[in-house]
Amino acid sequence: MAASQEDLLLKIQEQGDLVRKLKAAKESNERVKEEVSKLLALKAQLVTEDAGPQKFTLKTPKGTRDYNPQQMTIRNNVLDKIITVFRRHGAECIDTPVFELKDVLTGKYGEDSKLIYDLKDQGGEILSLRYDLTVPLARYLAMNKITTLKRYHIAKVYRRDNPAMTRGRYREFYQCDFDIAGVYDPMVPDAECLKVVTEILEALDIGQYILKVNHRRLLDGMFEACGVPADKFRTTCSTVDKLDKSPWEEVRTEMINEKGVSPDAADRIGEYVRLNGSTELVEKLLKDEKLSKVKAALEGVEAIKTLLQYCELFGIKDKILFDLSLARGLDYYTGVIYEAVLTQPIKIGNEEQTVGSIAGGGRYDNLVGMFDSKNKQVPCVGVSIGVERIFSVLEAKLAAGDITVRTSDIDVYVASAQKNFLEERMKICAELWDAGIKTEQSYKKNPKMLNQLQHCEENKIPLAVVLGDSELKRGVVKIRNITTREEDEVPRNDLVQEIKKRIDNLNLNQLNGAT
Amino acid sequence: MAASQEDLLLKIQEQGDLVRKLKAAKESNERVKEEVSKLLALKAQLVTEDAGPQKFTLKTPKGTRDYNPQQMTIRNNVLDKIITVFRRHGAECIDTPVFELKDVLTGKYGEDSKLIYDLKDQGGEILSLRYDLTVPLARYLAMNKITTLKRYHIAKVYRRDNPAMTRGRYREFYQCDFDIAGVYDPMVPDAECLKVVTEILEALDIGQYILKVNHRRLLDGMFEACGVPADKFRTTCSTVDKLDKSPWEEVRTEMINEKGVSPDAADRIGEYVRLNGSTELVEKLLKDEKLSKVKAALEGVEAIKTLLQYCELFGIKDKILFDLSLARGLDYYTGVIYEAVLTQPIKIGNEEQTVGSIAGGGRYDNLVGMFDSKNKQVPCVGVSIGVERIFSVLEAKLAAGDITVRTSDIDVYVASAQKNFLEERMKICAELWDAGIKTEQSYKKNPKMLNQLQHCEENKIPLAVVLGDSELKRGVVKIRNITTREEDEVPRNDLVQEIKKRIDNLNLNQLNGAT
Repeated sequence: MAASQEDLLLKIQEQGDLVRKLKAAKESNERVKEEVSKLLALKAQLVTEDAGPQKFTLKTPKGTRDYNPQQMTIRNNVLDKIITVFRRHGAECIDTPVFELKDVLTGKYGEDSKLIYDLKDQGGEILSLRYDLTVPLARYLAMNKITTLKRYHIAKVYRRDNPAMTRGRYREFYQCDFDIAGVYDPMVPDAECLKVVTEILEALDIGQYILKVNHRRLLDGMFEACGVPADKFRTTCSTVDKLDKSPWEEVRTEMINEKGVSPDAADRIGEYVRLNGSTELVEKLLKDEKLSKVKAALEGVEAIKTLLQYCELFGIKDKILFDLSLARGLDYYTGVIYEAVLTQPIKIGNEEQTVGSIAGGGRYDNLVGMFDSKNKQVPCVGVSIGVERIFSVLEAKLAAGDITVRTSDIDVYVASAQKNFLEERMKICAELWDAGIKTEQSYKKNPKMLNQLQHCEENKIPLAVVLGDSELKRGVVKIRNITTREEDEVPRNDLVQEIKKRIDNLNLNQLNGAT
Repeated sequence: MAASQEDLLLKIQEQGDLVRKLKAAKESNERVKEEVSKLLALKAQLVTEDAGPQKFTLKTPKGTRDYNPQQMTIRNNVLDKIITVFRRHGAECIDTPVFELKDVLTGKYGEDSKLIYDLKDQGGEILSLRYDLTVPLARYLAMNKITTLKRYHIAKVYRRDNPAMTRGRYREFYQCDFDIAGVYDPMVPDAECLKVVTEILEALDIGQYILKVNHRRLLDGMFEACGVPADKFRTTCSTVDKLDKSPWEEVRTEMINEKGVSPDAADRIGEYVRLNGSTELVEKLLKDEKLSKVKAALEGVEAIKTLLQYCELFGIKDKILFDLSLARGLDYYTGVIYEAVLTQPIKIGNEEQTVGSIAGGGRYDNLVGMFDSKNKQVPCVGVSIGVERIFSVLEAKLAAGDITVRTSDIDVYVASAQKNFLEERMKICAELWDAGIKTEQSYKKNPKMLNQLQHCEENKIPLAVVLGDSELKRGVVKIRNITTREEDEVPRNDLVQEIKKRIDNLNLNQLNGAT
């Protein structure tokens, strides 16, 4: 600390001189004030450094958290399963910077723009933290003039929202996106996104679910058929979006009082949004007196019909619910929209927790064009897995003792029963590491036997090599099975081989369900 | 866009009204100015939205970049190898938020603090982006009162430095850290960090390397023995740190002219810092007339002696170079310091590139205490792998055609030789996906055969299922080996099983080195 302290004192002195000079020269108040504030900033730094242990509350920023090893294990297990599905469908991986030029985000999120984190202007470009992974994808496609891409992107995004951390709502949180960009035949990539969601939810095995689907063209057509003026489609749509949380009566009131929809139109909308079903609903809507006269509505219903047909071919039609109340919040969707919902509360300890929406997405054909100087479009469809909700369910299960996790996967612990075995332990560790075997030892010269065995039990390490004088003299070492507490001797020279054999056996037993 | 546009117009109107009211009421210039700037900001937003395609240059922020699928493949391969080594040594994984309270970072980085990215004050806490992973680790340990931890942390950090992107120096870049916290016997965890570095560099196989080691106590003792006053130790140390880039004459001049070290003292330092070696150097220094009188120097040399002994037990002593010129930039080191350096330039295409330092670290026993209200210390030692340099070497090799990567690992492509096979293709894809087989198909209804096969070749997909009318009528499908172009027929009902068998064979052949 000596060097920077010295520097700081020097800077404070120079800054003090400057302020005195400016005051003496009767410079403008503004100028003096500016330099004084710099001086104070420098002094503040000095105090902090001088004060030894700091005074402020130690915490992570509001709405954020650390992940401890258990939470990281859960997180990595979940993400691994998801990545396996993404890659099974041929998705490539990309990444983008955590911040973007502020202009890139401007005008993309409607009312939510106020939740964007801005960086301080420290000279240079004006930057903001990314708000989602979809706008950076669109920027990436436009900037690199890429017209086809199937990619996944798993990264943290940032929103200055009101956190509800127990329900997995943070200001810094993971998004986990799969998107297909390119000009293709209708509903073929769209249906694959739904298939991807089902495979992921099956792999995660967190409960019964349905996939609600709807279509923005149908919503627009429905609003038109009900007598909503065109310039109110989007705002009416975001009111409909509230139906998953509020009863129809409240939504109706908001439509009429806040969005200026006529009571008649609202009532007509109310008739439609209570409809849900499958192919039979498609057939009903195609014959619907009002809808069948509106081009957009017919296009939307026909698209859903094709989607349902493809879902049948993919063997997932029983999971799909065509639901006219599904609206989705974001402005940029232009075609099919969908949302996966868990249909039963999840049991955590003795309590049940309702989770609700766990994945969502849709088609957005006009977003990439917003970044292209010639407004060239790249149609896209994608889905985002709500991993934070999944993490928080699993974390709650862990806390309730419903599941356990291993935060390290060490197979062998090298222990010694007597003193002065550090050197021999080190040699054996190196041999095991060099053979690729996950190995640990105590960092103490003379650890107690009990502590070493306890460490193995606490960390579920299956095997221990136990060194002792008499054994080493006979050219052998003991191997202890931590679970059964059985010990046997093997020749010191065969140790690596023996350990490998036993690890293979343990893994095999685990695969076969034995303990 | 309609809704947000409307909102914006409303807000602009309201804000305009407010400004007019303030002006009419002859409010202070400052107040009016403030509200006018808000109005202008709103109007600016409107222009952007109105203008259709945007006007600003599409780019990532200065010093940052996107990772395309090839770069991500390189990055993930490198990180996977590193994580395998970390976990082999029993390290657990943690993560921390991308930003911290600004106070957490204040006073930890000396002169480099000016490179920290601050977030804009949008009401609430004052935040900065993390500058490294070490200070967040120390904050994490202190905040959670954790006294022992062996963890790795791989994440991006942020520095407003001058980027040199071709050499892998970015403003947003990965750090890849392994640290051991806890009160243990001297040099036991420290030696393991060195072992971890050797295992990683062997696994990455990027060239010959040495691990330079030195000790901060020895450096301090050496400065004392040479007649440098105690308050100049740290600043002299950071001058010595420049020896890896500048010749001794320049370093000497800086010491004398800028740091106020006497010419005599500088010359004495010059004698020491040219020394490097192994155990024989340890013995020489222990007998050194000047050093042997200084307690700190002796402690440092004794520590290095122990470290070398442990490195011998770990089988890595031939990689270690005890080098008195190694100083390391950061203030917080208190014990052993080390740096891994590639000893030969790397061949990229027809050119050679010098890479230099590729990992570094050391012991920092006083950092956690800075966060503890009672100044309670948790001693730590750790190492950071310079993955960005490794990425840029491999990316250059990729660009030069020295290596190739596969960005997706699809095994089977489902193609059709004739029109109207989309439904059958979909059914087969679903069967293969459900069997866990990595499968792709065209998103077009009637893709051309040539395009489908080309896609397989470009993406190195080994197998294609080719559907045709005559085959399906006979209850068979063709499987094509893309490399050999051989085709044969299998019963449609055995397809999944047959494909599995062939993938296993391909993998086996690959393991055996066949093509």
